[in-house]
Amino acid sequence: MPSNSSNLPDGVEDLTSLDASELETLKRSLIDFYQSKNFQLTYPSLVEFADAIGGTQNSSLRESAFTFFDDLSSNELAIRPDISQQIARIDQAEESEKEQRYCYVGEVLKKRKDSFSRSRITIKAGVEIFGGGDNKYEVLSLLSDSVKIGNLNELTLSFGKTEILNEVLEPLDLDFDDSISLNKIISSKSKSDLSAWVKEKKISNEEANKLLTLIDCNGDLSVISKLQNIETSEGHLSEIQEIWDFIEKETCFKPHIDLTDFPGFNYHDGLVFSAHSDRYGFSIANGGNYFSQTSSGKLRSAIGFDQDIIAMIKLKA
Amino acid sequence: MPSNSSNLPDGVEDLTSLDASELETLKRSLIDFYQSKNFQLTYPSLVEFADAIGGTQNSSLRESAFTFFDDLSSNELAIRPDISQQIARIDQAEESEKEQRYCYVGEVLKKRKDSFSRSRITIKAGVEIFGGGDNKYEVLSLLSDSVKIGNLNELTLSFGKTEILNEVLEPLDLDFDDSISLNKIISSKSKSDLSAWVKEKKISNEEANKLLTLIDCNGDLSVISKLQNIETSEGHLSEIQEIWDFIEKETCFKPHIDLTDFPGFNYHDGLVFSAHSDRYGFSIANGGNYFSQTSSGKLRSAIGFDQDIIAMIKLKA
Repeated sequence: MPSNSSNLPDGVEDLTSLDASELETLKRSLIDFYQSKNFQLTYPSLVEFADAIGGTQNSSLRESAFTFFDDLSSNELAIRPDISQQIARIDQAEESEKEQRYCYVGEVLKKRKDSFSRSRITIKAGVEIFGGGDNKYEVLSLLSDSVKIGNLNELTLSFGKTEILNEVLEPLDLDFDDSISLNKIISSKSKSDLSAWVKEKKISNEEANKLLTLIDCNGDLSVISKLQNIETSEGHLSEIQEIWDFIEKETCFKPHIDLTDFPGFNYHDGLVFSAHSDRYGFSIANGGNYFSQTSSGKLRSAIGFDQDIIAMIKLKA
Repeated sequence: MPSNSSNLPDGVEDLTSLDASELETLKRSLIDFYQSKNFQLTYPSLVEFADAIGGTQNSSLRESAFTFFDDLSSNELAIRPDISQQIARIDQAEESEKEQRYCYVGEVLKKRKDSFSRSRITIKAGVEIFGGGDNKYEVLSLLSDSVKIGNLNELTLSFGKTEILNEVLEPLDLDFDDSISLNKIISSKSKSDLSAWVKEKKISNEEANKLLTLIDCNGDLSVISKLQNIETSEGHLSEIQEIWDFIEKETCFKPHIDLTDFPGFNYHDGLVFSAHSDRYGFSIANGGNYFSQTSSGKLRSAIGFDQDIIAMIKLKA
């Protein structure tokens, strides 16, 4: 990817010539497509109060943000590391109980470099639906159409449902810190770490075996029979089958099940998914179900995804 | 301007619904227009090394930038308060001796609020030409077409030439700090401050009178006869007449001469101009001639302008 990044900090770059034109074209095509599907274009502020980033549910997001002191407000500000949470703030301010649909394209900045792109700045494009019904198939189709607009193919869509892990975790009655550390171990798929942890925490053999089974639950539909062994509710199993079939038949993605890797564990609730390339194995899009709060404190169902559109351009090159 | 800016720091805001669509349309129209005139679209990095902002010539630009410490590079970084200087960096990296034309649209962030828009974030759109011949009339036409694209009218284009002030300053042989403070006084058009300053600095009566005349040199073509009194070179006077005529006949602007207000005093060299509204009196576009340096240290002539496209949308509303 040609760029003139002399005299720039590590992990940031200028986009010039063909890359810049390609980026502009992709931005416009995605915005046009989302607007045609009745998503309202939104430009959230580049800057937020640092305390508001990530909220109480997602401290790792706050840790990834660049912050600086602002004389004018006598407060720490942050450059947004993510846009979807800003959209939730905007939806909350709308105070609507009806379905609201938003789309956006904008820059985000993180302290650390992304593993694939070696970049700390990227442009995210995404959609969010608040207060709708079951929009999961619509959203998966939107993501499929989005990567087609980006001329990407041979991508895998990995998906899971947080309820299954939650069913296993519930009887353990873990506190917040323990559930965070267990989630990290399960995401890492390290059986030795998990064995050490269940021993240390004196988890019963039955529950420990369920966790050790769950850590293996990624791959194709054979996952379903493993889940039957740990008494997962029938409803979840048939939904996994149904989502698999939908992805296989109705999208451009190859389906893949992963019930252990929930990057937004404390935030997502329900379906989670990520699109990645077989060639590189990094995710270019992430999304899922979650709950936002109305200003009066009511829970409001939400679903959405975002894509790293600079990674999409690099992946094509 | 409707926006949902609850829980946001002072001077920053979200753009939603109509404003967001209008912004997107204006961005696209300007980029399309500049590309049709052979300007190459460029996306400079949102972040720079803090030391690089403003360079040695424009410390006030550096002071207006938000900076933060970066663990990865062990350096202070800054969010760009301006994009045109980034374009100069990109042109330098190209190492071309030929004419290069760049256009851009992007967010900038300043510590302080802009006087009109009460905003610290805005989106700047602009063009820069490096290594060209005399492109001033092309650039003034581009700016005129740009504000027409933004559906703005009744704007004034105020212009000046830095050479005239320089001719008066040269015999004074001021050091850097004195020329900065004198420039501030002249920009403020305060005769009493100027009288005090010439007394303190023991400026000769003849030179002091030239400065006191110059401070009055703003308005219509009657400025030219005032300039004749302070022995301004004939070439500059005929050029002022010529630029006035061009603006009046060939652009959508009302011309206005101002030989005292050079916001980029240490940076611009030659023609400087700014477009502002009669209704509000704040500038929505600024530009002019300057010199950039090639990597081997040679001077490279440059001309360009940038526009605050969020102010353009607000002005229309």
